[in-house]
Amino acid sequence: MKKAGVLGATGSVGQRFILLLSEHPEFELAAIGASKRSAGKRYVDACTWKQTDLMPQQVEDMIVSECVAEDFKDCDVVFSGLDADVAGTVEKEFVDAGLVVISNAKNYRRDPNVPLVVPIANSEHLEMVANREGGKGFNICISNCSTAGLVAPLKPLVDKFGPLKYVTTTTLQAISGAGFSPGVSGIDILDNIVPYISGEEDKIEWEAKKILGNLNAEGNGIDLDEDLVVSAQCNRVAVSDGHTECVSFKFKKEPAPSLDEIKSCLREYVCEAKKLNCHSAPEQAIHVLEQPDRPQPRLDRNRDAGYGVSVGRIRPDPIFDYKMVILSHNTIIGAAGSGILIAELLVAKNII
Amino acid sequence: MKKAGVLGATGSVGQRFILLLSEHPEFELAAIGASKRSAGKRYVDACTWKQTDLMPQQVEDMIVSECVAEDFKDCDVVFSGLDADVAGTVEKEFVDAGLVVISNAKNYRRDPNVPLVVPIANSEHLEMVANREGGKGFNICISNCSTAGLVAPLKPLVDKFGPLKYVTTTTLQAISGAGFSPGVSGIDILDNIVPYISGEEDKIEWEAKKILGNLNAEGNGIDLDEDLVVSAQCNRVAVSDGHTECVSFKFKKEPAPSLDEIKSCLREYVCEAKKLNCHSAPEQAIHVLEQPDRPQPRLDRNRDAGYGVSVGRIRPDPIFDYKMVILSHNTIIGAAGSGILIAELLVAKNII
Amino acid sequence: MKKAGVLGATGSVGQRFILLLSEHPEFELAAIGASKRSAGKRYVDACTWKQTDLMPQQVEDMIVSECVAEDFKDCDVVFSGLDADVAGTVEKEFVDAGLVVISNAKNYRRDPNVPLVVPIANSEHLEMVANREGGKGFNICISNCSTAGLVAPLKPLVDKFGPLKYVTTTTLQAISGAGFSPGVSGIDILDNIVPYISGEEDKIEWEAKKILGNLNAEGNGIDLDEDLVVSAQCNRVAVSDGHTECVSFKFKKEPAPSLDEIKSCLREYVCEAKKLNCHSAPEQAIHVLEQPDRPQPRLDRNRDAGYGVSVGRIRPDPIFDYKMVILSHNTIIGAAGSGILIAELLVAKNII
Amino acid sequence: MKKAGVLGATGSVGQRFILLLSEHPEFELAAIGASKRSAGKRYVDACTWKQTDLMPQQVEDMIVSECVAEDFKDCDVVFSGLDADVAGTVEKEFVDAGLVVISNAKNYRRDPNVPLVVPIANSEHLEMVANREGGKGFNICISNCSTAGLVAPLKPLVDKFGPLKYVTTTTLQAISGAGFSPGVSGIDILDNIVPYISGEEDKIEWEAKKILGNLNAEGNGIDLDEDLVVSAQCNRVAVSDGHTECVSFKFKKEPAPSLDEIKSCLREYVCEAKKLNCHSAPEQAIHVLEQPDRPQPRLDRNRDAGYGVSVGRIRPDPIFDYKMVILSHNTIIGAAGSGILIAELLVAKNII
Repeated sequence: MKKAGVLGATGSVGQRFILLLSEHPEFELAAIGASKRSAGKRYVDACTWKQTDLMPQQVEDMIVSECVAEDFKDCDVVFSGLDADVAGTVEKEFVDAGLVVISNAKNYRRDPNVPLVVPIANSEHLEMVANREGGKGFNICISNCSTAGLVAPLKPLVDKFGPLKYVTTTTLQAISGAGFSPGVSGIDILDNIVPYISGEEDKIEWEAKKILGNLNAEGNGIDLDEDLVVSAQCNRVAVSDGHTECVSFKFKKEPAPSLDEIKSCLREYVCEAKKLNCHSAPEQAIHVLEQPDRPQPRLDRNRDAGYGVSVGRIRPDPIFDYKMVILSHNTIIGAAGSGILIAELLVAKNII
Repeated sequence: MKKAGVLGATGSVGQRFILLLSEHPEFELAAIGASKRSAGKRYVDACTWKQTDLMPQQVEDMIVSECVAEDFKDCDVVFSGLDADVAGTVEKEFVDAGLVVISNAKNYRRDPNVPLVVPIANSEHLEMVANREGGKGFNICISNCSTAGLVAPLKPLVDKFGPLKYVTTTTLQAISGAGFSPGVSGIDILDNIVPYISGEEDKIEWEAKKILGNLNAEGNGIDLDEDLVVSAQCNRVAVSDGHTECVSFKFKKEPAPSLDEIKSCLREYVCEAKKLNCHSAPEQAIHVLEQPDRPQPRLDRNRDAGYGVSVGRIRPDPIFDYKMVILSHNTIIGAAGSGILIAELLVAKNII
Repeated sequence: MKKAGVLGATGSVGQRFILLLSEHPEFELAAIGASKRSAGKRYVDACTWKQTDLMPQQVEDMIVSECVAEDFKDCDVVFSGLDADVAGTVEKEFVDAGLVVISNAKNYRRDPNVPLVVPIANSEHLEMVANREGGKGFNICISNCSTAGLVAPLKPLVDKFGPLKYVTTTTLQAISGAGFSPGVSGIDILDNIVPYISGEEDKIEWEAKKILGNLNAEGNGIDLDEDLVVSAQCNRVAVSDGHTECVSFKFKKEPAPSLDEIKSCLREYVCEAKKLNCHSAPEQAIHVLEQPDRPQPRLDRNRDAGYGVSVGRIRPDPIFDYKMVILSHNTIIGAAGSGILIAELLVAKNII
Repeated sequence: MKKAGVLGATGSVGQRFILLLSEHPEFELAAIGASKRSAGKRYVDACTWKQTDLMPQQVEDMIVSECVAEDFKDCDVVFSGLDADVAGTVEKEFVDAGLVVISNAKNYRRDPNVPLVVPIANSEHLEMVANREGGKGFNICISNCSTAGLVAPLKPLVDKFGPLKYVTTTTLQAISGAGFSPGVSGIDILDNIVPYISGEEDKIEWEAKKILGNLNAEGNGIDLDEDLVVSAQCNRVAVSDGHTECVSFKFKKEPAPSLDEIKSCLREYVCEAKKLNCHSAPEQAIHVLEQPDRPQPRLDRNRDAGYGVSVGRIRPDPIFDYKMVILSHNTIIGAAGSGILIAELLVAKNII
């Protein structure tokens, strides 16, 4: 068993990390860190648990540490659910101390030395850490949640049919993505839509270029897809889990692949994590649904335990090549779940 | 006072017509029609009232007629909230009998002899009925609800800056638009999105060409804007009233007008109904909001009693010229309310 | 015009006071107070406005004061929407300075020298301030929101048929009652119920004894109904405005009045505020609904502009005498609205 | 493997039966029946599947029968999810033909020859079918969903501390209990409460007397607890799954057991199904929660796969002995799930 640590353990993302680790066959939870206010307390006392699964018994009595590398030095991997305002400093200290950090924070996503990974889509980008120079420690970033859902079906298409020219996405995002202290206010989502999520559109428009880019020739960095133009509009809606995205896309090359080719490509896609038999890898990374009114969050978000992304209503677009609806589980493939699967990939690839 | 009739009076749209007419200074409710099942009953007995305003007392004891022209022959105008499966036949009979029908049904929207009108946007299209040949009766169609919100801000822009080349819209539509017998099921919208509304995308993509088109040279028909390409994706969300649309658009002419020009055009726009002092005309047809997270259905849908459309987040789009968020009240400007304002325009223009 | 001040003006209750005052025929808004953080700013800059009605234009540029009596000395009445942690001190300072304070805070509700008033129910309790000894200033407390809905129909019954022995209420309370910074979290009410509201049950069980009590012989205090036993269970539900309560009650005297007598009493009840022609007084204080599935928050909360309370499903209870469902608008009759109507009563009764 | 049939297989309850049977170690699905309209079709074509779990593959191609006993003659047990308007006739035909029917319909619940069973509460009532005279076939009724949640914690209390005198319950019921064709309309539960469910209160008030009653001396019938008085008020709320009930209760005997005795009794309770090692039996039939704001539907409904009932906020009641909040999963312990567990009990008790 590899030893795992969790930073930001009392927060929404941290709780998910702890849940996913609690019954994991390869990782055992060895250390948990949170703010000074929580440090020294038992986890059960420090944390307002808000998951639908109960708090795992073995974590109840664990003592919360402060987020200092010394307390995590035995960890083979450290998962970070820290808020962006502290993640920058803390994660740097951990990496400098030789630790492997897999982070849900946005701070290092644009760092050219840090892979930005959606593990069912661009797991080959992880190789840049194997090929890097420098110390033992490194950082890997989980992508933004709405980026993850967007690129999941686009990456296999790009790999097969060449680069995209244009992508538009209008998102209908779940509230769990906003955490819960306080998270989205009830009065803001009851009988309402909030057509704005601070910073989100910019994240999608930039991160897609990195994730849909390729490993460079040296295998130690990513060539961004600078030609790709993405336009995003983001909304918060009254859904607990599951981001829906209405997406249009156009390939660089004309003519575009046929509708059948698109669907076959997605249906036949097997992600690398599955090929490597990673524990959490989805049987089917992309589910192509044919019913006219699917995917729907309540009905489809839990496919493959939230690691499978659903795509429906793939059809020609009068302006672009195609339009479609994507549904992804924002706290699994869009956050903590991806962190776990990245760690499994690192093990399977002998990087840790 | 002009005499008004309402067809489909027990349904969701019919109830709205009745509410809006109940305190109207120009129209009095003279006849109400519904299905055979309801005919002969008092309205209060035939109808499951679902409005947040109480049923107007004067309508409680009115006897429901069948939908036959004979029973409406004294009406100066007849508002139709009939379902599409019966609207075709009934409305034709009424028009043939010399009656003026303003219909919320989709049946005649694509008829070249019938104006398709969003009264705060293309009220000049009403002139084709004044200039038409033929009998006394005629039909005017209210546009689809999500089309109404979309074209409301686009029409003044087209009038000022010339035609559009591309428009995309992703809608987040309220459930009141689906009626309520049964309408949208609770289980379908609680913690959920339904990314599909039968026929809706096609309606938007076609109707926009007619509404953004121009009166022909003879003034008795509409030249469709055949060059305009619209791409729509429609979703049903957990909102009671108010359709939100995330819209991108590109003008034919380059360079596009500046952001300031766009905003000024919308802010300064005064709709014809307002100039003619129509009773229900909004003081401000288009509200340009500057807060980053607006418009929101709960906060903005009732501006100008639902006749004012709100536009926010107008900003450059990396693929098109601009993107923005539109909010419109689907049962007011998107349905019954527009019918009433069209009738007021017919009076103001001396057409009835 | 009397001059009115509002304390806690940027909060949820304060915003409602400002809205209700903005078009009031008797009161004009003369001063607004909030925390140090907001003091000195224009209201529009200090406040995150969350009402469905737009911020009244005349208040946008008003400068927010700190909550010190000196800045409110010209006010004939001061409405307090302060939080309980500051209301105690601030309101005392105001009263000591000779000001009249009508407060939504809980701090002085149990003070024997302060009337606790639901203005459509026990407005005669206001007379104790006319008959009191002491200085010019005094305090009047608005009741807790769920108490207000409960006692509104019970008070006329008690006045007619004598005291109650037992009352049980299970509440289904709207989220607007919890304010909005942060108020109820979205994740707590989406597809969920929270069966607990801190302190609420105790407030209902105690406040009912005071409101259903009588003016003492001297007319300067209230004899609590100490014999009355109330049992409350409180829940937060996914409703924006409008508290629903499922209530059972038993009179002290046997036999109990008949169902017809109960209904007639409620139907015929005219509140004192209406008799005195107070501007905001409801035409009908208690609406007795006969439909089997009413009252419902969305359909009934706005009766008489939220000053009318709806009662439905009155029927025999196998344990108590009767059971029924009550719906009251928690921010109108349960908070700011009652404050305004109390002020109107003070004017009508020549107390201010 | 025992052979199982499902009647009403395309409806909401039928779909749940099929899901629960699809991976069951003791039962295999052998026959499915529905209305004439569906008969002869493949299940996947006849059914609008609305479960969050996917339709089990093995049932997709099963052919739907009509609901006639002949087509189910090989079944060891038949689960009925039929609507009440057809269940009476169909189930009688099945029983007369010698089949064992476990029914979710209300039709035979008050039949003195039919046990009414909540399997975690009164499984000993099943013995009356072993002791009965007559043919091979018999019927067992699953209780109403809100009755199930109510009696689950009350039955162990009654067994230990003697009969109850009074029980009151105010329910906040999930929409899944109403099925979905059409079920509860979206407009009825969005930002709303419906304080009425047809027939529900009467069901609770009567069924509790039977379930909390005892096997008669002959062991072939139930002595109703005729002295027990139950008062119910039922509400439909915006929750997908999970009925919340606010309950008060008073024992016949005075003094009542202490709060500690109540909690210990519930905590220590082990249901018979668990003792018999039934596959679906909950590890813990009653979960006593100590957090002040629990149970909550979203967080607690899935305890023990929905077979565990949660009880929180147990505290003294000023009118009765105690009050508390109960949460039960209405489609598991309140419907199909109980049917499956009853069948497991019949097998464990060698009745089938």
